[in-house]
Amino acid sequence: MRIAVLNECFFSDRHIMALRKLGQLSIYTDTDTEEKTISRMKGADIVIGDQFIAKFGRRVLEQAKKTRLLALNTTSFSYVDLEAADRLGISVANTPGFSKESVAELAIGLIFAVNRKISLMDRLMRDSPLELDPGKVEHQRFMGFELRGKTLGVIGLGRIGRIVAQLGNSLGMEVVAFNRSPRRFKGVRMVSMGRLLAISDVISVNLPLNPSTKGLISKKSFESMKRGAVLVSTSIAETMDMGALRNALREGKLAGAGLDFGASISKGDPLLRMDNVVLTAHAGSFSREAFFVALPEMIVNNVESFVKGKPANIVNGKRS
Amino acid sequence: MRIAVLNECFFSDRHIMALRKLGQLSIYTDTDTEEKTISRMKGADIVIGDQFIAKFGRRVLEQAKKTRLLALNTTSFSYVDLEAADRLGISVANTPGFSKESVAELAIGLIFAVNRKISLMDRLMRDSPLELDPGKVEHQRFMGFELRGKTLGVIGLGRIGRIVAQLGNSLGMEVVAFNRSPRRFKGVRMVSMGRLLAISDVISVNLPLNPSTKGLISKKSFESMKRGAVLVSTSIAETMDMGALRNALREGKLAGAGLDFGASISKGDPLLRMDNVVLTAHAGSFSREAFFVALPEMIVNNVESFVKGKPANIVNGKRS
Repeated sequence: MRIAVLNECFFSDRHIMALRKLGQLSIYTDTDTEEKTISRMKGADIVIGDQFIAKFGRRVLEQAKKTRLLALNTTSFSYVDLEAADRLGISVANTPGFSKESVAELAIGLIFAVNRKISLMDRLMRDSPLELDPGKVEHQRFMGFELRGKTLGVIGLGRIGRIVAQLGNSLGMEVVAFNRSPRRFKGVRMVSMGRLLAISDVISVNLPLNPSTKGLISKKSFESMKRGAVLVSTSIAETMDMGALRNALREGKLAGAGLDFGASISKGDPLLRMDNVVLTAHAGSFSREAFFVALPEMIVNNVESFVKGKPANIVNGKRS
Repeated sequence: MRIAVLNECFFSDRHIMALRKLGQLSIYTDTDTEEKTISRMKGADIVIGDQFIAKFGRRVLEQAKKTRLLALNTTSFSYVDLEAADRLGISVANTPGFSKESVAELAIGLIFAVNRKISLMDRLMRDSPLELDPGKVEHQRFMGFELRGKTLGVIGLGRIGRIVAQLGNSLGMEVVAFNRSPRRFKGVRMVSMGRLLAISDVISVNLPLNPSTKGLISKKSFESMKRGAVLVSTSIAETMDMGALRNALREGKLAGAGLDFGASISKGDPLLRMDNVVLTAHAGSFSREAFFVALPEMIVNNVESFVKGKPANIVNGKRS
């Protein structure tokens, strides 16, 4: 059994040792072109791949004659031609949920940062240290609300949304949620989207991007929201009508928004100049536990399960 | 019974109505000099005062011949000459804990902001939107850790510290605490200061300022901390050796610090230029629930209790 690691996947010695027990290992660290991808996949039964480098399109997969498993180091598999993989008998494994805790914790962190004006104050303090006085009218814009006792609305009760809901509960919030397919989850009351928007003091968007979620948070959604609500999203920006979001922030319909949208915000975007916005750099998964522990362990486990004839986390072939 | 409100204390109509039932009410909104304070206290049995304006020194209190209760709109009473009040038979009431939930929530918010580099990213994003790539070495400085399963050390298990401990617990953290006098609190393991510093991944300082807490977080304390820990403080800066704090941040002994120190940070302080620091403007109590609900209710309750002969929250006279 030959295993090719196309790029480092945050493997530490113990992960490499585990992989060596499963086959003859080739480790590359610079597979950054389609040609290198093709030549390095050649002869490998199992390929461990990286979304950030070469994509796995039809042309690449067709030349990987021996490959039976393509183990990705991501939850997303949109950069793999799954139809070609199906046809060629290549199983594709992903790493679902390796960073779910980290993403959920970032969502909670964004709620605090927006609601309590933490990033705004930090920016102002760096210019000139400031001492708030509740008696000063001009300081009242720094006033947030206590989360305890407020209502948190979670849109999308998947792996991440469930943890956000749980954390919200544990902060003393009432938690309601909307999910396209019905879900049951302890401490969470399932409601319609309209109801959620109308009653939530804090809204957390935790949706995967797919045709049914694209633009789901629409102009109408913003109109239905409670005045003064805080909105956070660790989803992809495309789930939201960005023009309607900007208006809601400008008009004060929303108290503020925390958006982990990274470079999908373009350089001239007015959001970059709004005081009631907190922006992060697509950092949901950015924890040591996610990248240095959960991710490599899950990849090794995917390879091991496949070798032992009990494939795990396979994302293709289900349709055949 | 004559009641004088020297400055507005965020009273809404229902608070004013409640006070009117207790006595003849005079409401001032601009008691901003010692002379005005003296003339307006004259003839008032009960005075509701504001720390942000004129102080209650010996000279002021000695001329308030009729005053039996001075009801403050703050938890602090350091701006009142308590010895003079004692001698003159003036009871002084404060508003302990009116903002404890808000302060504790800010402490938790600071933990997230520091650990997950939220404010740093927000600042960078505003210059130029950024997309993190875990494979890039230069992006690894944006990596935090998952709070779940980590150890939170709470220094000072008073009203605020207890809520921080509880919130830490509910986020899935192990919570240890140090308090000068022994305390028992569910879910919290009491440890020595040295032990707390050595084992905590996150340290929250929630101390009142008094002679025994001044400089309590010393150079030696910083040396005892775990490398890579996150430190937050919603206490007064004087509880900390600021030089030692700067060094710990500069050397990377601490991953970062979140400090609600307001204008006690001076304009040239190197902290203002450090990327691993999050600074807030003495904003712990800055929530609507604290200032518009809990505070006025507590003041009204202090006045009512006094009028009914069961004084509450009296801070002086105990020593006699």
